[in-house]
Amino acid sequence: MKQCNARSFAFLILLSLPALVFVPRLCAQQTGPLALMPMPAHMTMATGQFAIDGSLKIDLQGFKDERLESGRQRFLEILFKETGIPYAAATQPGRANFIIKTAAASDAVQQLGEKESYHLEVSAAGVLLTAPNPLGALHGLQTFLQLVRLTPQGFSVPAVTIDDEPRFAWRGLMIDSSRHFIPVSVITRNLDGMEAVKLNVFHWHLSDDQGFRVESKQLPLLQEKGSNGLYYTQKQIGEVIRYARLRGIRVVPEFDMPCHTTSWLAGYPQLASGAGAYAVAERWGVMDAAMDPTRETTYQFLDRFIGEMTTLFPDAYFHIGGDECDGKEWDANTRIKEFMRAHGLKDNAALQSYFTARVQKLVAAHHKIMEGWDEVLQPETPRDVVIQSWRGQASLAVAARQGNRGLLSTGYYIDLNQPAAEHYLVDPLGGEGASLTAEEKARVLGGEATMWGEFVTGENIDKCIWPRTAAIAERLWSPQEVRDVDSMYARLAIVSPRFQNYGLELEASTRVMLERMSGGEVPEPLEVLAGAMQPPLGYSRGGMREYRTSTPLNRLVDAIPPESETARKFNDLVKRITDGKASAEQWQRARELLVLWRDNDAKLHPLLEASDLTAELVPVSQSLSQAAAIGLRALDDLENHRMTDKDAAQKNLQWLEAAAKPQAVLLDMVAPAVQLLVQAAGAQQ
Amino acid sequence: MKQCNARSFAFLILLSLPALVFVPRLCAQQTGPLALMPMPAHMTMATGQFAIDGSLKIDLQGFKDERLESGRQRFLEILFKETGIPYAAATQPGRANFIIKTAAASDAVQQLGEKESYHLEVSAAGVLLTAPNPLGALHGLQTFLQLVRLTPQGFSVPAVTIDDEPRFAWRGLMIDSSRHFIPVSVITRNLDGMEAVKLNVFHWHLSDDQGFRVESKQLPLLQEKGSNGLYYTQKQIGEVIRYARLRGIRVVPEFDMPCHTTSWLAGYPQLASGAGAYAVAERWGVMDAAMDPTRETTYQFLDRFIGEMTTLFPDAYFHIGGDECDGKEWDANTRIKEFMRAHGLKDNAALQSYFTARVQKLVAAHHKIMEGWDEVLQPETPRDVVIQSWRGQASLAVAARQGNRGLLSTGYYIDLNQPAAEHYLVDPLGGEGASLTAEEKARVLGGEATMWGEFVTGENIDKCIWPRTAAIAERLWSPQEVRDVDSMYARLAIVSPRFQNYGLELEASTRVMLERMSGGEVPEPLEVLAGAMQPPLGYSRGGMREYRTSTPLNRLVDAIPPESETARKFNDLVKRITDGKASAEQWQRARELLVLWRDNDAKLHPLLEASDLTAELVPVSQSLSQAAAIGLRALDDLENHRMTDKDAAQKNLQWLEAAAKPQAVLLDMVAPAVQLLVQAAGAQQ
Repeated sequence: MKQCNARSFAFLILLSLPALVFVPRLCAQQTGPLALMPMPAHMTMATGQFAIDGSLKIDLQGFKDERLESGRQRFLEILFKETGIPYAAATQPGRANFIIKTAAASDAVQQLGEKESYHLEVSAAGVLLTAPNPLGALHGLQTFLQLVRLTPQGFSVPAVTIDDEPRFAWRGLMIDSSRHFIPVSVITRNLDGMEAVKLNVFHWHLSDDQGFRVESKQLPLLQEKGSNGLYYTQKQIGEVIRYARLRGIRVVPEFDMPCHTTSWLAGYPQLASGAGAYAVAERWGVMDAAMDPTRETTYQFLDRFIGEMTTLFPDAYFHIGGDECDGKEWDANTRIKEFMRAHGLKDNAALQSYFTARVQKLVAAHHKIMEGWDEVLQPETPRDVVIQSWRGQASLAVAARQGNRGLLSTGYYIDLNQPAAEHYLVDPLGGEGASLTAEEKARVLGGEATMWGEFVTGENIDKCIWPRTAAIAERLWSPQEVRDVDSMYARLAIVSPRFQNYGLELEASTRVMLERMSGGEVPEPLEVLAGAMQPPLGYSRGGMREYRTSTPLNRLVDAIPPESETARKFNDLVKRITDGKASAEQWQRARELLVLWRDNDAKLHPLLEASDLTAELVPVSQSLSQAAAIGLRALDDLENHRMTDKDAAQKNLQWLEAAAKPQAVLLDMVAPAVQLLVQAAGAQQ
Repeated sequence: MKQCNARSFAFLILLSLPALVFVPRLCAQQTGPLALMPMPAHMTMATGQFAIDGSLKIDLQGFKDERLESGRQRFLEILFKETGIPYAAATQPGRANFIIKTAAASDAVQQLGEKESYHLEVSAAGVLLTAPNPLGALHGLQTFLQLVRLTPQGFSVPAVTIDDEPRFAWRGLMIDSSRHFIPVSVITRNLDGMEAVKLNVFHWHLSDDQGFRVESKQLPLLQEKGSNGLYYTQKQIGEVIRYARLRGIRVVPEFDMPCHTTSWLAGYPQLASGAGAYAVAERWGVMDAAMDPTRETTYQFLDRFIGEMTTLFPDAYFHIGGDECDGKEWDANTRIKEFMRAHGLKDNAALQSYFTARVQKLVAAHHKIMEGWDEVLQPETPRDVVIQSWRGQASLAVAARQGNRGLLSTGYYIDLNQPAAEHYLVDPLGGEGASLTAEEKARVLGGEATMWGEFVTGENIDKCIWPRTAAIAERLWSPQEVRDVDSMYARLAIVSPRFQNYGLELEASTRVMLERMSGGEVPEPLEVLAGAMQPPLGYSRGGMREYRTSTPLNRLVDAIPPESETARKFNDLVKRITDGKASAEQWQRARELLVLWRDNDAKLHPLLEASDLTAELVPVSQSLSQAAAIGLRALDDLENHRMTDKDAAQKNLQWLEAAAKPQAVLLDMVAPAVQLLVQAAGAQQ
């Protein structure tokens, strides 16, 4: 039997020509590493396989509830999508060959730290899935679905025994529904994606300067004046919470305060520190608007609001944000300055602490535990308050040493267009966290990927979240030592297309958006260009054009995924070549890609000017071709050990330096790799 | 300005290489024929265009209702999908530039023959849409959406004045939810597709031998014993009816009786003519099971049932099926034979007439008008009964002469895998219908596409229905003289990808299913093979393998659309070549396709055996390559006016004859075209 371990598999992918990608895939699925993500805590392979056919018959034994029943139903629906075997036919008469045993009920409201373990035994004869509660069983079912593979004998799951449980209890995804409203159907399909990779907290960022997105019946001007009419009704919120619970996911709402609150103030300017008038923000960035922490009426309002929202959201935790106060409105208000003097509040941070302490008491009075971003942490902060860190592991370590629990989001900001590998290698207990005592480490609850919403809509958010968040999910679930980047990418390549079985639109969204830009069928050269591009990194995009909340996000930068597979593989090829480790096939593959890019502009150019949405790509396409032409010459020089003209090389490097900078809000991922080739060619004398 | 009329546009598509498809598309959208389907009754083009940007502001004037408001909302959502311009931003302050004026309310329950006309005026300055009622306005909005196109200056709609109304009042799509259960979400997205092309009747085939799919509260064993647990609750039915009404679509339920009733008899064997026992059918074909028309208890049961269902479905029409009684159970039952003798019923047709007349009285007593297939028509049938014809225009003419109204489904059986052109050219008033008097012609209400469910599931039904049903919709809406097949295909090519804006899965479903067959990314050679294949025609598929209701529909035949665009274009090329009318580019294009196919098997073969779902394609792939090789030699002979070896040609023709027969339940669409080439080459001496 052909052997493919993780390393050789990644290698095969690397050198494969497009038409041959098929072979390593099937190979990986049949005899290579199992494409599990997150990797289980313990796993033992055996021989044989369990056939997936019409004879599948599941029996729920032990404790049963609606969640388990719906989990089985969902399992069969996904299994249908994986195999095409109709699930109604999967309840044939006869003895069950797939037994699910759960010992007891899950908690009525899912709790932080509730058991999530499961034991899965697959043999040729049958499947046994046991768990202390339905929550663990749900995780086991998702593991099983990832094990399904296609073989010459049909669909099957290899014989294996898995004992699994998470490393961290808080494994979250935050979605910002404020900056752009995200429709309920997009939220729910992302909950399905979360279940697939065992994430268990949906952190819902529901208010910010640009929109207040929840219906308040007590304070209806919040949504009426604080949104463009796009908000979630309480009925919809209830449905999302129920949908999440069925999938083993808690829903933690965030209402950011006292800053990031312009949208609140549109309806209730009496809460403000400034004179107003306030209207929902239409631009991005940190705003000055802030609640007035000095008025008792502010707390009366918040008491009413928190009372209503803590009834709506059953989770034990309630997130009050608390980040990024610029203090300008406080500075400008003499009454507030007077209050600060009278109460010995020496600066704005102290004023915010006063506010946070008051709000924390309101949250506690409504029987919830407060959560907030780094800024809410003060020496006197009650010990049960949970800190979510956007500042980093050091900030989290401060909280843990002080006795507060916390979770990491630094490094998991999936809106910043970093590659999966960078997120993957960030550990909640890395950096300063590694120096904590065992007791302090136990206070680090986990982490959360954060999908901030400036540049995503319901149309393109899925591919910004997935598949990269699957790598973060593995970081939070799997043992700390699971951190091989090649293995991660190899498994991600198999897991990623499976997200469409959960209704998520990854490649599909790119295709639809490219079709729109093309006014019809997508010409291949546009696909080639798109594959060589990535969105700009970090926060740079906001400075490149004037963006408002109403700006259409329908350009190439909005259509492409944050990480280009083609560019990543080309970069790997170039590194092998410049390291002198490339095989003949790899040289050949690099050459083919460069030729493809070099010749692309001649085909693409005539098409681009026909559409308002592609005309701006003319220089981008030219630049890609030119970079590829330079790369080809450097490759030739390297291959033939030929001296490079120093002046020409210098000029090329300068040109490439410029070409590697964003154009039309796009990052050319080929130019930097070509720089390496030119440098290597120049260095060989 | 570049001119592209319908003919030259079709021609451009024909000769375009894949990479250049972009150009004619954009051309067509900018200056060519408008890609409207169905074509309006009257249209006058003007100069200028109305820009689609963030400034769009719609004002509803005159009569307003929920349907109009939801139509506006939906319009903006589709417009967002077409352009990426966020619809919330489309309600800018300022004067409206898109005015919708409706004179009066639509009927509370949509009526057959209710006005559907609209007047649409687009100029650079604004849009005026007027209609007698919301129903007409909904149609006008869909026309506008089809006019949106991408230009170098952005999205816009050309200046045009349209006065439009349908030719036929009954324009339907039937979906069979019995043979395979079709999930509600699939039904609703097809209702969206129907709205897009102005179809106005959803005929829902809800019971048959293989499944009873509606919850009955009065007679719950119908769904409990008559389905595999997959049926629509009454709440869901209500939601679908409401969803349809908002889109200007009536919902006509069909409960087929007295035959096609095995699923009823599973729960209520006392209705049967035979001794039973009855279980839901698992195979396709005409079954013997029949209700007993001789017992009063049968009519008491049906009275209760019809009472419940006519309350659930508000439409004025109620379809009782009535087709395909084989009479075997009646023949075998001495009590029934005795009854027939006693009542002077000379044969089984007479017995069915007796049954139908009794049922018609029940339907009328519940204030509904009965509809049935051809078989229900008898000389004494009440004049208000509507006949749906699966037998043809002659059968329909008999009904019309007798004074009954009818609609045509013969020729619109979209389950039979015929090309769009064949359906398109069938006219409800063609054939025998052409000889009717004006008064009789008025009794021909329209037609219905019928999507029978033996070989479709929710996963692949969309691409079986669309885009071909759009051509049928045009036949039923547009003036009779609109029947240019080239123009239809040219417009269909633009309309077809737009169905994805309505949530329909056409190419997407093919891709997902090919991915499943491949165990990952789809290798290009598999796409090439798939593009040359079609499902077998007519009813032949059922005889090729043993199919049951539980048979997975996950093979290549299930993944591909019923009509291959590539094959159609190749066939057109071959016809031009053999007619001596091909341009140099067309010769070249034909050669390229043949080379692609000839060389395909060498790449594909090694991949096919890795998967249980593709292994059967080995001989299919070989055969395609061999046919292409023969085709290339014939092309050479033709191009060089070279004599062909007669024996070789004869052998090749024989071989091609066999290759044109289904293999692995697939029809090779290249072999018949190659036969033409070989014949032409042989005929040139």
